[in-house]
Amino acid sequence: MGAMKGVILSIHPEVQIVDISHEISPQEIMEAAFVLRDAAFYFPADTIHVVVVDPGVGTGRSPVALRAASHTFVGPDNGVFPLLLNDTPPDECVVLQPDRFRASGEISSTFHGRDIFAPAAAQLSRGLSLLDLGRACGDLKPLHWALPMSDDEGVQGWIVHIDHFGNCITNVSRQILDEKRGDRPVKCFIGNAIIGGISTTYGEVESGEALVHFNSSHFLEFAVNAGNAAELHGIRKGDPVKILFRDQK
Amino acid sequence: MGAMKGVILSIHPEVQIVDISHEISPQEIMEAAFVLRDAAFYFPADTIHVVVVDPGVGTGRSPVALRAASHTFVGPDNGVFPLLLNDTPPDECVVLQPDRFRASGEISSTFHGRDIFAPAAAQLSRGLSLLDLGRACGDLKPLHWALPMSDDEGVQGWIVHIDHFGNCITNVSRQILDEKRGDRPVKCFIGNAIIGGISTTYGEVESGEALVHFNSSHFLEFAVNAGNAAELHGIRKGDPVKILFRDQK
Amino acid sequence: MGAMKGVILSIHPEVQIVDISHEISPQEIMEAAFVLRDAAFYFPADTIHVVVVDPGVGTGRSPVALRAASHTFVGPDNGVFPLLLNDTPPDECVVLQPDRFRASGEISSTFHGRDIFAPAAAQLSRGLSLLDLGRACGDLKPLHWALPMSDDEGVQGWIVHIDHFGNCITNVSRQILDEKRGDRPVKCFIGNAIIGGISTTYGEVESGEALVHFNSSHFLEFAVNAGNAAELHGIRKGDPVKILFRDQK
Repeated sequence: MGAMKGVILSIHPEVQIVDISHEISPQEIMEAAFVLRDAAFYFPADTIHVVVVDPGVGTGRSPVALRAASHTFVGPDNGVFPLLLNDTPPDECVVLQPDRFRASGEISSTFHGRDIFAPAAAQLSRGLSLLDLGRACGDLKPLHWALPMSDDEGVQGWIVHIDHFGNCITNVSRQILDEKRGDRPVKCFIGNAIIGGISTTYGEVESGEALVHFNSSHFLEFAVNAGNAAELHGIRKGDPVKILFRDQK
Repeated sequence: MGAMKGVILSIHPEVQIVDISHEISPQEIMEAAFVLRDAAFYFPADTIHVVVVDPGVGTGRSPVALRAASHTFVGPDNGVFPLLLNDTPPDECVVLQPDRFRASGEISSTFHGRDIFAPAAAQLSRGLSLLDLGRACGDLKPLHWALPMSDDEGVQGWIVHIDHFGNCITNVSRQILDEKRGDRPVKCFIGNAIIGGISTTYGEVESGEALVHFNSSHFLEFAVNAGNAAELHGIRKGDPVKILFRDQK
Repeated sequence: MGAMKGVILSIHPEVQIVDISHEISPQEIMEAAFVLRDAAFYFPADTIHVVVVDPGVGTGRSPVALRAASHTFVGPDNGVFPLLLNDTPPDECVVLQPDRFRASGEISSTFHGRDIFAPAAAQLSRGLSLLDLGRACGDLKPLHWALPMSDDEGVQGWIVHIDHFGNCITNVSRQILDEKRGDRPVKCFIGNAIIGGISTTYGEVESGEALVHFNSSHFLEFAVNAGNAAELHGIRKGDPVKILFRDQK
């Protein structure tokens, strides 16, 4: 990270660099996709977002840059972007061609953040266009894994992120759930916990008790009031989550 | 955190944002209060400090903004401020009224850092006054828990923060201790360790040995020279600390 | 760290502060030396780098500032700089004399980052010269420990840093290895793993398999494709690494 910031400031000393997360687990594309989606569009228009969760560095995955909803994104085409782009399709997308925007010098096979993405972002911040940096490309790698399955009985998703507080964020959005359940009440199965109903604040249950609610990004979250839900209930990333609809007969 | 920075920069793109700690444990008001007190007044006058350690988000605690010693503070009225304000009472304090300074849009019940404190801080940085953002209020929630107990025999406090190095910081200030002990020597009981006398540098004891000294914020600290005091002595936050005065007869 | 940033901004409000690592273990001079070397020269010329890995604070080690390759460095003379300076000897070096650049006020015995290095860096950023801040000095503390041993049969080094991904970085540089082995193939012994040959990307081995390669800073690194090498092989910082040359007879 230090070297990336150095590269960016060497190309464009006046740019403002902001860290958005020190929380993403190593190599976790799914987690990075959710963190990016939660934060990106709160930044001002024309922000350039650089993503370097890149387990496939040095293999066939393409380095890309794209423009969506007046924001610019730079990173590997490894599945980190489609969640973000689900509701805001990109207006333009290129595969980066480093010889167009890098000075001479070797590109390492293990740190494209420093050697490709940081220089690309810095050049974009100085006013170059996407097409100055690469050739137009079509679809990005899709993100099938991020969508929960559902039928008329319920929705099945999983835990995509456990935050600093032990809250367990699922991939079940308010939109998907509301679409499927209509006005039927729900029953949620998460690890060994069974929760009836969706709360609106932590404070609706006693201290130490579990609840589910929609978090500030509108995804269903499993939490414990004043406690660490993941630890108390032994939840891990990837664990399944079931929400069943109970008919009001 | 990422979304908060985005909100601030969207309202005031020229502002400079500085992280002061990635070290505070989740939901630890007491720890946050000490970290804030250690750092805040080293910043330039008119800095705006945003605090988001906020376990009570969505419950009855008030969102506040206040002005003390030419600095501005924004955050929840949950006990995080009084330690800081002990020696520097606030000149002005308001309860934030979000409809006065926020554009339309929902306020989440779980992330007031993004939805209330960040917008308030950004508007203050653009020149709005406290009274533009809310209505004047009186006393903040007090911080009884932060004060050690003492009598003529000694002082009893506890561990309020364990830092990155395993140093154990107590809530016993140099001021309180000096006031009570006069020039009597002290004996300190911390976990299973008994330490006679207060050192001035780590180097006064052998490598691997324990000591107590006043840290750079003038609070009594339990440390091990070149070692992790918390791990070596099994100290946890909240553990009691006793300092007895030994009469020089 | 918060207080240091406050001190710097109080002296020079327009300066841009960049964090380069939250990854360095407490008190680890060797690790800090490698992180610094990996990042420093990617920053623009005239960057001021402040180092505060300082286990000997309050003892005899000198606070220094130096200039090398058009960059400025401030920190303790405890061995953190020589690795960086191995290929780029300093043009100028001073022992800091705090009374020359600090306003009145106590210097703590435990936080020279805040009380000496931050003010020195801020004054340098405002245009003061090294000789304004202290008196010229000669050699810094050397870094014998950082050099691997070698003979005609092989090289013996050790693990100096384990990164966020569990990759194990050794102190064996590409330069040293190439100088010694000529074009003989190598066999690497790291913990319980024996690896024949040096890969160029993670993807050259199956997922879950171990490899060695030169990392993006040209040091030999032990890694597992899509896995945590340190955990899987029980490697710890300081563990020995042997590279034997096999004659091609």
